[in-house]
Amino acid sequence: MTAHMQSRPETVSASAPRPRIVIVGAGFGGVQLARGLDGAPADVVLIDQHNYHCFQPLLYQVATAVLSPADIAWPIRHILARQSNLTMLMARAEGVDRTARVVNTSEGPIPYDTLVLATGATYAYFGHDEWADAAPGLKDIEDATRLRRRILLAFERAETTRDEAERRRLLTFAVIGGGPTGVEMAGAIAEVARHALAPDFRNVDPRTARILLIEAGPRLLPALPDDLSAYAARRLEAMGVEVLIGRPVVSITEHQVALADGTIIDTATTVWAAGVQASAAGRWLDAQTDRAGRCIVTAQLTLPDDPEIFVIGDTASVKDMDGKPVPGIAPAAKQMGDYVAKVIRGRLDGKPTAESFRYRHQGDLATIGRNAAVVKLGHFELTGFLGWMFWGLVHVYFLIGTRNRLAVGSTWLWNYVTNQRAARLITAEPATSGPEPQNGARPVGERTLRRA
Amino acid sequence: MTAHMQSRPETVSASAPRPRIVIVGAGFGGVQLARGLDGAPADVVLIDQHNYHCFQPLLYQVATAVLSPADIAWPIRHILARQSNLTMLMARAEGVDRTARVVNTSEGPIPYDTLVLATGATYAYFGHDEWADAAPGLKDIEDATRLRRRILLAFERAETTRDEAERRRLLTFAVIGGGPTGVEMAGAIAEVARHALAPDFRNVDPRTARILLIEAGPRLLPALPDDLSAYAARRLEAMGVEVLIGRPVVSITEHQVALADGTIIDTATTVWAAGVQASAAGRWLDAQTDRAGRCIVTAQLTLPDDPEIFVIGDTASVKDMDGKPVPGIAPAAKQMGDYVAKVIRGRLDGKPTAESFRYRHQGDLATIGRNAAVVKLGHFELTGFLGWMFWGLVHVYFLIGTRNRLAVGSTWLWNYVTNQRAARLITAEPATSGPEPQNGARPVGERTLRRA
Repeated sequence: MTAHMQSRPETVSASAPRPRIVIVGAGFGGVQLARGLDGAPADVVLIDQHNYHCFQPLLYQVATAVLSPADIAWPIRHILARQSNLTMLMARAEGVDRTARVVNTSEGPIPYDTLVLATGATYAYFGHDEWADAAPGLKDIEDATRLRRRILLAFERAETTRDEAERRRLLTFAVIGGGPTGVEMAGAIAEVARHALAPDFRNVDPRTARILLIEAGPRLLPALPDDLSAYAARRLEAMGVEVLIGRPVVSITEHQVALADGTIIDTATTVWAAGVQASAAGRWLDAQTDRAGRCIVTAQLTLPDDPEIFVIGDTASVKDMDGKPVPGIAPAAKQMGDYVAKVIRGRLDGKPTAESFRYRHQGDLATIGRNAAVVKLGHFELTGFLGWMFWGLVHVYFLIGTRNRLAVGSTWLWNYVTNQRAARLITAEPATSGPEPQNGARPVGERTLRRA
Repeated sequence: MTAHMQSRPETVSASAPRPRIVIVGAGFGGVQLARGLDGAPADVVLIDQHNYHCFQPLLYQVATAVLSPADIAWPIRHILARQSNLTMLMARAEGVDRTARVVNTSEGPIPYDTLVLATGATYAYFGHDEWADAAPGLKDIEDATRLRRRILLAFERAETTRDEAERRRLLTFAVIGGGPTGVEMAGAIAEVARHALAPDFRNVDPRTARILLIEAGPRLLPALPDDLSAYAARRLEAMGVEVLIGRPVVSITEHQVALADGTIIDTATTVWAAGVQASAAGRWLDAQTDRAGRCIVTAQLTLPDDPEIFVIGDTASVKDMDGKPVPGIAPAAKQMGDYVAKVIRGRLDGKPTAESFRYRHQGDLATIGRNAAVVKLGHFELTGFLGWMFWGLVHVYFLIGTRNRLAVGSTWLWNYVTNQRAARLITAEPATSGPEPQNGARPVGERTLRRA
């Protein structure tokens, strides 16, 4: 910023526009950075394709009918309403013209002096993009309501079919990937089937649903110690989830999942939680990227050849003190947002910092189901009910807005007491998705309700 | 039912199937009837295209970002889970084959002994179906989230355009129809613009939004006495709504609404609340219908030529004691559901009732905005804050499920205190709707954010 402005000091005058900082992406990193620039002598523009900031760690609870979308999403404008140097633009970023110094968006080109790309990550299908329709991932609100629709529809269709094989297929749910998202999804599907749905069906018993958690690597939750991985697997199995370890997937269609060992799983609902890749930011910038598509950045999180372009969050390739990659989690993105705010403010004040970004790992946690979670903070480990309470408190605490905290807290309490799920709505497939895969392809055979 | 079974007594044996009562539609009438048949010696099948019962009177609050869809919708299976003689089928009814005595649905044909059609109403565009895309109505959850999307997007697009005429168009909202839905929508849009959105925008002032309520007839709320109509109009005008009375609409496009007197209103968001027509039940049955497409039924709510086919709710043409048409409101549908349950139970018990359906009008009420509603119960009238409190209590009371009452009650309290709107999410247009009209057709001119 200062470098840039110093290169054309003759243009700086009392009436000159203030430098413009454009932030693309209102996830954890982008919002944290925007907040950190409150009061800075610059015009901050925050661009996102949605009008809301979404609390991604709880998306799986929207997908499993626990919470409503509005419980975990908050209008970006409202979060940042009091910040007078900030403008929010709802637009889809489509590229960066580094020569013209503009971000190209669906609403036209937006010029920048300093650019921060915080565009996050999307699913990676390891070269099998054809799996995407049959096995959607869970990255935003639309994904979550789409999965909710599929999961609830599978039970509805199982209720009406008389074809026993089809019914088994409809009642089989495959979650691929044993990281925190996969563990949480598998546990949550098991709970909704065993408890919330169980009393409401006539022709099928939702408790007989088969839920598989399929992991290619040697254990669940690889970021956690062995004993916590083993605990998670045991708890999931006690909840009726089949945990398949060291079983790579080789094919996914609308009707089945095939494993490397030849196992075929007939299923109507597959959830992808196995891998992510960075957003297109690397391509936009024509920057050097790592294997996951994340931009290689300097110790100050800028592009090596342009100190006015920062990349943060899941779309940046950053190493911690020990040379290990910084994980793609919310606290890491927020720390990068905080750090870049400090760097930019230093430059604006004419006192650029020489400090490098340092990632402080605060811990890992994942919930498994009612009364069970795994938590690791430094050397401190928690499991079971205490871990679960800790997990809940942390997640409620980090929700933006008092109302969301109250709404989520009271919904969880209600669910805990009644075992109900409030948000069991099958709503229309969003138009932005591809055509709905024929997951629930209807059997042509007889129907339970059709009389002989 | 008895008549039907008596005609083939030789088929009745201990192992004979119990008579099957098929109810199509899980709105207020269908659910009330289903509940009324709890424990009856019959197999009850309730068919609905959605998996949830929706509390339609509060849809306008979903459309204006006050409530979440799950706050006013409840899984049908769950409502009726304890009713062991009932099966719920999520399917779209497509017709009735009266000869074969089956309902044709998306999930195959469903045979019936007794059929009850409670399929409700849809919008009527008075022969102008081409208005439907530009001026959506408000009958289900998808309609409500679609309208929410359009209303919120209009403000987002107004924020980014630099074309002053376009900005005025985007900030103009036309509500057509001065009945309760129109009054409530106009008031709610005015409130969200004046209060919840006002502090969050930079380039536009949402308080300058122009909201028009356009009624062809001589006054608002024609079901209510003159003084209450006048009160509603005064209150709306005090909230900044332009109330146009006696002004029929002659044309609606994506860009404007034209009135019979030649007035052209440039608007990007038009809401249709002017007229409804009955569902297709009359066509399915090849039955005699009134002008609005409602089936003409006997005093027992059956087809004149088939005592085993009932039609109830908004899709039945029924007169009250004074010969006036029974209004298309929730209490009327529920009373018909109760009545038909009694008729069917009487027949099942071999003691058919001779009693006719009698509609008891309980009252009319409509809310206008914060601290203002109109209520008429018999000779008793309420307006202002007391009317508003009464309206709120009645609506919370009739919500299904304690959790929904708590959620809606606490959300209203929160909104009242903070003036915020929690559910300000712009989510994807549902795929089931037609192509999105180019409501927010983007101006090709400059953008506020584009530097000169």
